[in-house]
Amino acid sequence: MAKILRIDMGNQTVQWQDVEQKYHQLGGRGLTSRIVSDEVDPQCHPLGPNNKIVIAPGLVSGTSAASSGRISVGGKSPLTGGIKESNAGTNWAQIAGRLRIKAIIIEGMPQDDTWWGIHISNEDVTFFNADEYAGKGLYDAYPKLFEKYGSKTALMGIGISGEQKMSMAGICFSDKENRPSRFAARGGLGAVLGSKHLKFIVVDGQGAPGVEIADEALFKQGRKKLTDALMNHDVTKPGGGLNSYGTAVLVNILNEVGGLPTRNFREGRFKGAGKISGEAMSELCKKRGGVGKMGHGCHNGCVIQCSNVIPDKDGNELVSVIEYETTWALGANCGIDDLDAIGTMTRMCNDMGIDTIEAGGMLGVAMEAGLIEFGDSKGAIKLLEEIGKNTPLGKILGNGTEATAKMYGVVRCPTVKGQSLPAYEPRVIKGIGMTYAVNPMGGDHTAGYTIASEILGAGGKTDPFDRDKAELVRNFIYTTAFIDTSGHCLFIAFAILDIPTGFEGFVEECNGLLGTQWTADDVGRIGKEVIDREIAFNRAAGLGVADDRLPEFMKYEKVAPHEGLWDITDETLDSVLA
Amino acid sequence: MAKILRIDMGNQTVQWQDVEQKYHQLGGRGLTSRIVSDEVDPQCHPLGPNNKIVIAPGLVSGTSAASSGRISVGGKSPLTGGIKESNAGTNWAQIAGRLRIKAIIIEGMPQDDTWWGIHISNEDVTFFNADEYAGKGLYDAYPKLFEKYGSKTALMGIGISGEQKMSMAGICFSDKENRPSRFAARGGLGAVLGSKHLKFIVVDGQGAPGVEIADEALFKQGRKKLTDALMNHDVTKPGGGLNSYGTAVLVNILNEVGGLPTRNFREGRFKGAGKISGEAMSELCKKRGGVGKMGHGCHNGCVIQCSNVIPDKDGNELVSVIEYETTWALGANCGIDDLDAIGTMTRMCNDMGIDTIEAGGMLGVAMEAGLIEFGDSKGAIKLLEEIGKNTPLGKILGNGTEATAKMYGVVRCPTVKGQSLPAYEPRVIKGIGMTYAVNPMGGDHTAGYTIASEILGAGGKTDPFDRDKAELVRNFIYTTAFIDTSGHCLFIAFAILDIPTGFEGFVEECNGLLGTQWTADDVGRIGKEVIDREIAFNRAAGLGVADDRLPEFMKYEKVAPHEGLWDITDETLDSVLA
Repeated sequence: MAKILRIDMGNQTVQWQDVEQKYHQLGGRGLTSRIVSDEVDPQCHPLGPNNKIVIAPGLVSGTSAASSGRISVGGKSPLTGGIKESNAGTNWAQIAGRLRIKAIIIEGMPQDDTWWGIHISNEDVTFFNADEYAGKGLYDAYPKLFEKYGSKTALMGIGISGEQKMSMAGICFSDKENRPSRFAARGGLGAVLGSKHLKFIVVDGQGAPGVEIADEALFKQGRKKLTDALMNHDVTKPGGGLNSYGTAVLVNILNEVGGLPTRNFREGRFKGAGKISGEAMSELCKKRGGVGKMGHGCHNGCVIQCSNVIPDKDGNELVSVIEYETTWALGANCGIDDLDAIGTMTRMCNDMGIDTIEAGGMLGVAMEAGLIEFGDSKGAIKLLEEIGKNTPLGKILGNGTEATAKMYGVVRCPTVKGQSLPAYEPRVIKGIGMTYAVNPMGGDHTAGYTIASEILGAGGKTDPFDRDKAELVRNFIYTTAFIDTSGHCLFIAFAILDIPTGFEGFVEECNGLLGTQWTADDVGRIGKEVIDREIAFNRAAGLGVADDRLPEFMKYEKVAPHEGLWDITDETLDSVLA
Repeated sequence: MAKILRIDMGNQTVQWQDVEQKYHQLGGRGLTSRIVSDEVDPQCHPLGPNNKIVIAPGLVSGTSAASSGRISVGGKSPLTGGIKESNAGTNWAQIAGRLRIKAIIIEGMPQDDTWWGIHISNEDVTFFNADEYAGKGLYDAYPKLFEKYGSKTALMGIGISGEQKMSMAGICFSDKENRPSRFAARGGLGAVLGSKHLKFIVVDGQGAPGVEIADEALFKQGRKKLTDALMNHDVTKPGGGLNSYGTAVLVNILNEVGGLPTRNFREGRFKGAGKISGEAMSELCKKRGGVGKMGHGCHNGCVIQCSNVIPDKDGNELVSVIEYETTWALGANCGIDDLDAIGTMTRMCNDMGIDTIEAGGMLGVAMEAGLIEFGDSKGAIKLLEEIGKNTPLGKILGNGTEATAKMYGVVRCPTVKGQSLPAYEPRVIKGIGMTYAVNPMGGDHTAGYTIASEILGAGGKTDPFDRDKAELVRNFIYTTAFIDTSGHCLFIAFAILDIPTGFEGFVEECNGLLGTQWTADDVGRIGKEVIDREIAFNRAAGLGVADDRLPEFMKYEKVAPHEGLWDITDETLDSVLA
């Protein structure tokens, strides 16, 4: 039976606990949000002794289910002040699943300044002193730790941003080649780990018993159906859009739509879009050769493989990965059209353990404030360096978009619940704007990726400008919460929306694993339960419906070229998840 | 008939408007909060084009009523995110009243960077270019402006903190001798004026028609009763506590009680208390002579005269005024026991247009963060200088206690609704803690000064530790809202609580002025209406009951010497103003 590993950072002790009945059918986000709701006082200080970090692999993470290596991290967010779940694709999730770790709960905080690491294997759980890695980059630390603990382990860690308790700090997981590159990036949970002085968790899967599966035959049947669907959908199949160009395949598409936020959300179209697109990355890989590679996978067993390795001028590795959100945030949103500069900044973010969306949002606001000009990539790199140096300016920037706007009196601050908005212009694509506004996580596209319908036509194309989308948004948000619970990558959404057997397989997989008899209705029901619980936490934490709003400037500043305004009424917003 | 002066900063135009019926019986806080509620979208950005600043003299301000020279300033606060009313005692209020200005509404914002001043007289309203004063201190600007416009005018202005839209920026009014020293300090309304590029408003009372009084005889009768009460109450009479030692008479009293927050609310008693007390100030004035003076009045016609002029070593003016809150904030709360250093810092705050409570709260947190040591007065002065230099560090500090705590990851952050707590330890004096928590203004003692009962015994002594105070707090909060509406100084509370004819006189004064037949019940009713309206604004702005809480650390950190914890339940708090 899987267990819960409870870690007390106050005295560096651990306890393996049986899983309560109420948690049995939960994993990933469903489980982290449930435990956070059960154990964390919504009014606690996010960086104080009463916040906790909960880490949970998805239900099927660690099995052979396709593209299911997601790990969820939850807690009270220092960025939004509400509940947070952030997830990443990494072998770490799979090893944790195979070690039969249902969840890890990290609580308490040490009295002294020692930095700690934790090593978890099938044999035991041990603490190690991590002081030697403090204040240094993750590109320095990760190879050393893998050398010490073995290349087949997987690593979770925080960078200097987390050590400094900055709200931009994500949690960094290793990818298949042990790079520090897969992030549970959003919401500043790295700062919470920093407050608990926990730098790393190494998981070692040697001798792990593997995930328990109640009905192997049903599980395999479901897995096959879902895998087939993924392998056949245009978006996710080998040689399809994501595989060929990575997530940045969206750059040109969104730019064409006029929905690519540019220069701190001043415009919806960026002249330099082509230069920072997935197509440009693919071209770069071909031209420069060397280690450059599109169609890279973030964890074993992913059939989509939308990651990449971006080469520098000499064909050596510049960075992995530049996602769509990253090339947008550090690119279009800053008026920067130089992939090498974007790659350099991405690497800096990885090294410091920083969410690239928040970094790009912050840089856009810093440019708005006049610290540097839009388009000044050298200046942007210097600003990121300030974070690493931990100067007062670095403190401001490292605390994110809203902190920077607040300190510099910038009104055009593109955040919801304090979290930087992602790469889709809500005044043009209304459904995603509604998702930003009402989902419990703050400005977040992955919470209800209506772009799948509004731009890519999955599950039926909807008009981006159409405002009658409460139901669409609701369905996406609930279904997503279930996908995030299952441990699958969100990108299975295309295949399960468009291919009925894909959806069938998805549900059968879960039923096979748990021995349940869930139907399609249960997906929505369980997703709703997760969301309702998250909202209840937020309400108790002080986030009310007035926080379910886009920034005011979007109501009075039109965005070119479509001259769109944010015009969804409060009543409509309040109806989405009511 | 009094009028409303509406000023559009977008195009620098003004309009005199008739007063709507619903505003007739309101003044001061009652009027600013009513107009803000009616005209400002609670969800607007405080520094954006849709916020407004409303300035209103109290009902009797400008009459011969004793101690009634209060001016209220309202708007949406950039510090708390809620509605704000902050008031000051100044001849400015009296001149505005005599000019029959019911309220000034400042809206819009200019497109360019010009700084503006406004001159208001009985003849006309004119704009003047104030660029020459921008970036300079108020001790530089005020004498020049008085020279230009005449020494009998009165001045309102913002300093460089307001220009920089820092949340610590108050609004500075001139005192009787035209110093920049009387502040509507709290809540960052100076930043809102900064966002509108309005530096100064000069009011010139020459030829002013005076306040209209409906029933002169009744008004005079009331005035006499209230004045007599003020002149006979131990706290407010000539030679009484406030007059002899200023508001800082409270230092030793609170220290004795163990309720003087010390070193960022780590302790409740300060060894150096005696050195920063009102008695020490009085001693200093006697010893150094020169211009030093206790028993100074902030505006003409005040019978209490609790202000002071603090001399430097040579008997020249160091600063006016060091209030109790100021000597606590910049003194005990920072572990500083040097009156000269406190005076220097107070002068710097006046010069930069800064709230001294927020400044002291911020310094305490900066010390907590390790920027300087507790007790390091030279270091504290240097930190304040950073604000003036507008460095990144200055940006952080200038945005106040919570911003500083956020940027430096400090958990022991003594704020409510983002506003720094004043000089009374809530774990020891429960009623004032409840006031801090639930009143709509954020951490604020003047919103319901239960200290009058809990420490000074006015209206009947209550035990500071007693937790059964919902009714006491409620009554104080409602009555205060009415006093703030009347235009009287809050310090009339002692006389009206303890001397029945004082209270009678207070109500008769208002009835005489307005021609109303209010009774004692109406005081509570009208006060409640003001508070209910403010709370409704806050709720719509996103401040819910979860924001009606003291900082979490007070629930788990005991405060010496009484080892008090904050132990008022949420249910009790929610019952106070329900």
